[in-house]
Parts: sequence; C-alpha cells; structure tokens
Amino acid sequence: MSSTRIETVLGNLAARGLSQALVCDPRSIQYLVGAYVDPGERFLGLLLRAGQERPTLFLNELFTAPAGIEADVVPFKDVDDPLALLAARCDADAPLGCDKNLPARFLIPLMERGAVAGFTLASDAVDDARALKDDRERQLMREASAANDAAMTRFRELAREGVTEQQVAAQLEDIYRDLGASGHSFAPIVSFGANAADPHHEPDGTRLQKGDVVLFDVGCRKSEYCSDMTRTFFFGEPDDEQRRVYETVKRANEAGRAAVRPGARFCDIDAAARRIIEDAGYGPRFTHRLGHQIGLDVHEPGDVSSANEATVQPGMCFSIEPGIYLPGRFGVRIEDLVIVTDDGCEVLNSYPRELDILG
Amino acid sequence: MSSTRIETVLGNLAARGLSQALVCDPRSIQYLVGAYVDPGERFLGLLLRAGQERPTLFLNELFTAPAGIEADVVPFKDVDDPLALLAARCDADAPLGCDKNLPARFLIPLMERGAVAGFTLASDAVDDARALKDDRERQLMREASAANDAAMTRFRELAREGVTEQQVAAQLEDIYRDLGASGHSFAPIVSFGANAADPHHEPDGTRLQKGDVVLFDVGCRKSEYCSDMTRTFFFGEPDDEQRRVYETVKRANEAGRAAVRPGARFCDIDAAARRIIEDAGYGPRFTHRLGHQIGLDVHEPGDVSSANEATVQPGMCFSIEPGIYLPGRFGVRIEDLVIVTDDGCEVLNSYPRELDILG
Repeated sequence: MSSTRIETVLGNLAARGLSQALVCDPRSIQYLVGAYVDPGERFLGLLLRAGQERPTLFLNELFTAPAGIEADVVPFKDVDDPLALLAARCDADAPLGCDKNLPARFLIPLMERGAVAGFTLASDAVDDARALKDDRERQLMREASAANDAAMTRFRELAREGVTEQQVAAQLEDIYRDLGASGHSFAPIVSFGANAADPHHEPDGTRLQKGDVVLFDVGCRKSEYCSDMTRTFFFGEPDDEQRRVYETVKRANEAGRAAVRPGARFCDIDAAARRIIEDAGYGPRFTHRLGHQIGLDVHEPGDVSSANEATVQPGMCFSIEPGIYLPGRFGVRIEDLVIVTDDGCEVLNSYPRELDILG
Repeated sequence: MSSTRIETVLGNLAARGLSQALVCDPRSIQYLVGAYVDPGERFLGLLLRAGQERPTLFLNELFTAPAGIEADVVPFKDVDDPLALLAARCDADAPLGCDKNLPARFLIPLMERGAVAGFTLASDAVDDARALKDDRERQLMREASAANDAAMTRFRELAREGVTEQQVAAQLEDIYRDLGASGHSFAPIVSFGANAADPHHEPDGTRLQKGDVVLFDVGCRKSEYCSDMTRTFFFGEPDDEQRRVYETVKRANEAGRAAVRPGARFCDIDAAARRIIEDAGYGPRFTHRLGHQIGLDVHEPGDVSSANEATVQPGMCFSIEPGIYLPGRFGVRIEDLVIVTDDGCEVLNSYPRELDILG
C-alpha cells in the first residue's frame, strides 16, 4: 500500500516538474512509510526521488524506526549535522520540492549551503494524495466518528449546575479511551454561556449555570485517524433569540452538507451555508471558514472557505461547521464530518442535531 | 518590561546587521508583547523594525489580542493574504531576519514575492534574550519546579502492582492542577521496566510488576513557565546491575550540576557528566545530549551537548539529565533543572535522588 502511495506522490511531483522532494510533516511521513515520529525540535525528513522505489528517512537515533519500514533509514545523533547527510543524498542539479512545514532553521541553511538547484513548495503533491481517502481510510474515519458520536452521549451527561469547564474537559479523555480511542485528536473545547461566543475558547474555571449554552467541540484519534464534531446544548430553557440562532445554524449545517457533491467547489459549499446565516441577519457573526479537511491530522489542507475555488472529489473528508457568535452573550456551532461520495456525501456523524435542553 | 525586551532584541538584531525581523514562535511573541496565541496552521507574526518602538502583530481575527497589548495589531480574516499585509509593512530594501520556526509555506512565498532584500535566520536575537531569565522569571521557574517536586511525591504513590502506564499518566494532570499548575508542560513519560530503555517512550498498556523500574519524566506549566524533572524508582529490590546503573547516573547528574558556572562551556558540562558514565563502561548507552534550556517553552535553544561550545551565563536555565538505557531490560534517568548564578548554579528541584524502592 505505501509503495503505491509513494508512486502516487512521485507522479504528482513529476506533474509539477519535480524529481525530488523533502517531506517533514510527521503525519505525511506516517502516511507514506507507516512510521509516526514526533521529533520535537529535532530534524525529521523523508527524501523522495524519482526512480528510487524506497525513500530515505533521516531519523535521530533517539527515535526507533518500526521493523519493516518501507524506507532506507539514515540515523544521526544530536551532535551530527543531518542537513549534510540530506544534501549528500539529494540531486544537486535539480530543484527540491519542500514540505510546507519545513522550518526556516532547516530551509535557510539548506539554501545557504546551495544543496540543490532551487526550492519550491511541493506539499500539494503529498496533500493531494492524502486528501483522497482510500477504502480502508474511509472505514477508519467512520469508526473514529462513531466513537465521537458515542462519546457525545456521555459528555452531555457531564453538564451539571456548578461544574466548571475544566472539570468537564478533564473527564473526556477517559471516556474516549473507554470507547477504544487513543485520546483526543485536539485539545477539547468546552464552553459555557458567553464563552461559547469565542470559537477557540479554552476551558477555564467558569461554572455552568441555568440559561447557559454548553458547547462541545471535540474529537478523538482512533486507529490513528481523527474525528471532530461540535454540538451546542442549552442548560435550561433557551430564549427566543437563542432558539432563532440555533435553528439558523442547524439549517446552515444542513445546507452545507446538502451542497457537497463531486464537482462542487469548496467556496460554493461555504456559500450555501453562509447564505442561510446572512439571510437571518447574522452574517457578520459567522467569523470563520465553514470547514477544513481531516484525516491523519485534525486539520488537513484545503479549506471549505470562500477563498478555495477547488472542486471536491470522491474520498475527500471535511467538516461542515457553521456558527453564530454573539460576544458577551452566547454562541452556537454545529459541526459534522462528511466524506464525498460519487453522488453526494456520507455524513460520518449521526449524533442528533435537534435543539436539546439539559438540566 | 516588554518594551525593554523589544529594545534588547532590536539591539541584538542590530549587532547582526539587521534592521527588521519577523518573529513567529508563539512563546517568543508572548515573551515580547504578552499575548499567547496558538495559531495552528494559520499565520501569526510579529514584525520588529529598528526605530519603531511598537512592533506589529499580524493576527487572524479568530484570535483576540489582550487589551493593552504593546503592539499595533493588524487583523486579518481566513480569506485574506496576511503575507501581503506583512510585505506592505516591511522595509523592501533591507534583509529580513526570520524566526527559525517560520514554515516554508510562508517563507517561500515571501521569497517568491521579493518582499524584502534577503532572508536570514535571526531567532538568536530573541532566543539569546529569552535565555537570560530576569528576576521575575527566575522566581516563576522556581515555583514551577517546586510544584513539580510536590507532584513527584504524589506520582510515586500511583505505582502499584498491575497498574498500567496509561492509567498512571492519566492521573497526573489533576495532581498538577491541584498544586496550582495549569497542566503538563509536555506529554508525560511514564515507563515501566524495559520501556524505560526508550528515552521517549509513550505510556501504553504495560502493567507494573515486581522488579520493574518506574521512570517519571514529567513537568508542569505554572504561571506560563515550565518545569521538567525525571526520577527513576525501583518497584521491588533492584539487582546488582540495576544498583550500579542507578548510582552511575546519580553521580553523572551530580557531576553535571557541579560543572555549571559562568564561563563553563555547555560541552564541558556535558562532558563532565558523560565521563562518569563512560568510565563505568556505559558510554554507548547514554544516547542523548545531557540537557536543554527551558523557560516559556519546555525545550529552548542551546543544548547542553558536545556540539555546543557556547559558554553559560548567569540567568540561563537548563536541564541536567543523564541516562543509561539497556534495551530490552531497563533504563535510568535522573533530571534536574538549574539556573546559572554568579558563581555556580541554583538547583530548582529538591526532590531526593537517593535510590528509592517502592512496593
């Protein structure tokens, strides 16, 4: 399987006129050769070259490559210069495609060394391959979201008067593990009341009280693949505006999902959802893109946003997550993951979206 | 305070012949202007220019700058091009000092745009300032390590026969919070038995049994500053080699700390500890650098390693963490943090290092 993936990426590179590329993103390396290493500040690189079936992995010897890894491993120590080892394996007369996440501390010295005949961004060659989930990956995405659905049923029960966001957030990981996940796919967002008006709120000591919304934006990692879902509950009876905002976001979520089909542009999907919110008079209060692609990483390239005119293709997986945020008051977001099918999309989350009053 | 820090960094840049620099590291931005933002894949940058008292912060409007931030904030949306906003504020005729963590997805487009007259690594200008902790920072480092010492007393109690590494690891964060910390400063390492022979082992389902070592490499973040300490316990009576390895590592830790004084080179400190391990015949089994600097980040630039010939200065803070790793059998590491003083060092950890038998 991985050798097919490497062939695909080498083909993508060739189509861009490139015969070699350096992949640094740990999840891209995992995707290509099956080894996940988080190198921290240390160098980690996978060199792909046209005509070479096996790529070369530059790996600090602090980390262990799994047996049977489909790459030649070049180990190095903390005191070695991994860029010299890399340069020796590159074609000095050809440009090098670079990982979008290659940090300047490696890129600028490679440039100053004149290691290759130029540098160009080439992550698309890998990201385009990663974006099209194969059958096994689709199944793993389904399983991760099924665990997230099951977890939400239990998270909902944690909302009790007086509990803090942090107290709730601290209990989520055990529930995920209990459901067979390895942990969070990102730091969970648990927001009560006005905190939900900040889309990226971090759980704090705020206590839950009657009249608050309770927003969970949560995901787990299961068999290496990520889930990501948002539900917003009401702790006590919502007022008229809260109901109106909730139903607007729910309709925007539906409209976004309904717009997904092969050939639709990402920006069209964003627009379909955004129009519902604009028509309800809340356009300026939907302050972010509609969604993001997801897989081995919780955020993968290719926004569902007005700026992305690319068309969606079967096998792509992304979030549909409209929201309305009223600073100082409350916020509502409803998020699901979808996989593009031949004639529409499969929604990976089945957790209900009906307005749900707790407490 | 921050404006002094910016003056220091502008002075460091001038000494390198630079009149402008782009800082991207979130903790460096926090250090300079007091706002911590984790932008994920989105752009975040702080532009410093000679002669400008206030730097410019380029901030996605998803994130909120704190009131009173000592920077001019240039907000942008997901669909905007922040690099165009940045280029418009740079001096096109001067080179730009670059953050070492600036990813290629921003650096290469800036180069292709010809935004400035060249690019050079300039993180040293910020890192050198961050490396010299001021009085307030030293106090915060002490407090974070005091919390870590107190936590280790409670972590030790979690080692009971049959418990898994993951079960132990899952309990640590609550203990840190209970002690006033905001959480982990890094993913905790809890290793039983042969797992301790992998310096970067991730807690798994391994169950504790008699004869195992129990290694905790753990740290908390408190008032934004990081702690980091390792202790290795024995669950049941150690055999002769385990005792010999433990005492060797303990003496290496002592020798490393004893070598710290202003003017000593980092490589000399590494050598002082490494020699003890080599003389005991375990040289090849000490597979990593002796330590790393620490502060707002758990790993800050400036290794304590044979490759770093820089000299230490008062106010620098780093780890001394020798280890011996016997694959398939066990490993021992003993780690403390020190701050360099005028005539030696202050050891931030007071948790005992004597061989300690549990169970």
